[in-house]
Amino acid sequence: MNPAAEARLAMRRKEWTGPTKHTVSGYVKCNLVVLPKEDTYDFLVYCQRNPKPCPLIEVTDPGDPEPKMSAPGADLRTDLPKYAIYRNGIREEDRLDILDLWTEDSVAFLIGSGMTFDDPLERAGVPKTQTWLLNTTIETVPAGKFFGSMVVTMRLMTPAQAVIASQLTGRFYLNHGSPIHMGDPAAIGADMDNPIVGPPLKEIPQDLMAVFWACGVTPQKVALSSKPKLMITHAPAHAFVTDLKADQICLP
Amino acid sequence: MNPAAEARLAMRRKEWTGPTKHTVSGYVKCNLVVLPKEDTYDFLVYCQRNPKPCPLIEVTDPGDPEPKMSAPGADLRTDLPKYAIYRNGIREEDRLDILDLWTEDSVAFLIGSGMTFDDPLERAGVPKTQTWLLNTTIETVPAGKFFGSMVVTMRLMTPAQAVIASQLTGRFYLNHGSPIHMGDPAAIGADMDNPIVGPPLKEIPQDLMAVFWACGVTPQKVALSSKPKLMITHAPAHAFVTDLKADQICLP
Repeated sequence: MNPAAEARLAMRRKEWTGPTKHTVSGYVKCNLVVLPKEDTYDFLVYCQRNPKPCPLIEVTDPGDPEPKMSAPGADLRTDLPKYAIYRNGIREEDRLDILDLWTEDSVAFLIGSGMTFDDPLERAGVPKTQTWLLNTTIETVPAGKFFGSMVVTMRLMTPAQAVIASQLTGRFYLNHGSPIHMGDPAAIGADMDNPIVGPPLKEIPQDLMAVFWACGVTPQKVALSSKPKLMITHAPAHAFVTDLKADQICLP
Repeated sequence: MNPAAEARLAMRRKEWTGPTKHTVSGYVKCNLVVLPKEDTYDFLVYCQRNPKPCPLIEVTDPGDPEPKMSAPGADLRTDLPKYAIYRNGIREEDRLDILDLWTEDSVAFLIGSGMTFDDPLERAGVPKTQTWLLNTTIETVPAGKFFGSMVVTMRLMTPAQAVIASQLTGRFYLNHGSPIHMGDPAAIGADMDNPIVGPPLKEIPQDLMAVFWACGVTPQKVALSSKPKLMITHAPAHAFVTDLKADQICLP
């Protein structure tokens, strides 16, 4: 069994309920969105119009919890460490599985995650350190019922590392690709006072640069704005681990 | 007016009815698919599952013929040099506009075209020569009602140029990206006897290598297999010219 399948099995057995950051290196990690069939067309178009926050790795057939292309044999109802349940725009609860919420009508969207390029960055001389998840005032392009502002990840690094990181992550276009911004957090309205993940940060240390990537938690922000009846997602930082090799970069 | 808008205007006035290959350099060119709303979900998933032949540049709102993101002000009913009309899997006719076929229910899909990287290839030392369009026996991944085999483009070049071309086109992932095959055409069942575009070719000259890219004419092959009631496409080699800069490569 490969390390990705092993990790998924531990999650299925609820032995692994914590974050997936800096774990199972070498495999593409994904954000999850599950919607009922009636909302899926609008969401597909939303993802197409917002490829940086929402690069689609796989869309399952209605009712089928197996992501056949990216992790054959996996079960998206159980194989994530933690799920968040949004009803009418409210994050009602977190869960360790979604077996009782899955119906014949459920469609899963796997969206590439920036966690995927942490290892390549480290190999290229950009060490793994804190990653913040921040709300911004950047409006995404709406589609049908879906609209909302973008969530970003922020990493701090030297300007020389920022050049390396831009160049390298640009290749990982299925995992958010190149940065959407560098420098002043205020320019994109990044909410440094209330990070979704990470400690509050008063200001950027003088010798470091803040580098921002679009984040696959954006659909959860969109759920808060657009209020679909039911949207199931991964809990932030608790990603799905696919069998796809991170270094392969592109889909066939 | 930029050269792309000028070209579209000439097409709208039916002064330009010929191919777009090696023209309006510097702008992203697109294959077109128009479907009635009932078929669009399946087709969106089909594109997601087959990103190499069908990389989506834009999906319009139902009934709206303007591609607001890639060519604001353009009209997809008139601004291509030539259209092909498929009814129930038969290419019934070619047209210079589709004004009378467009309804409130029509959705347009713009799919990146390999024509986009001809100029960058030339700048990198791979001259513009004949491009063939060929049927193959590679099966695409089905989605809903859509299935069929892949159409490819073939270019002949030296092995050294093939290395450059692989590396360079890999960056153009919204215009088919890296090659899907190099070398023996028989390995992918490429039909050299009956090219869709290009002269018949008995064999590959000994000092040259055949390099194959997934092609945005694939949906037309899919139309022949899947037989949707109505699918409107560009006529092969007669692409839509967007305002997007080819060298920008990625969508925002």
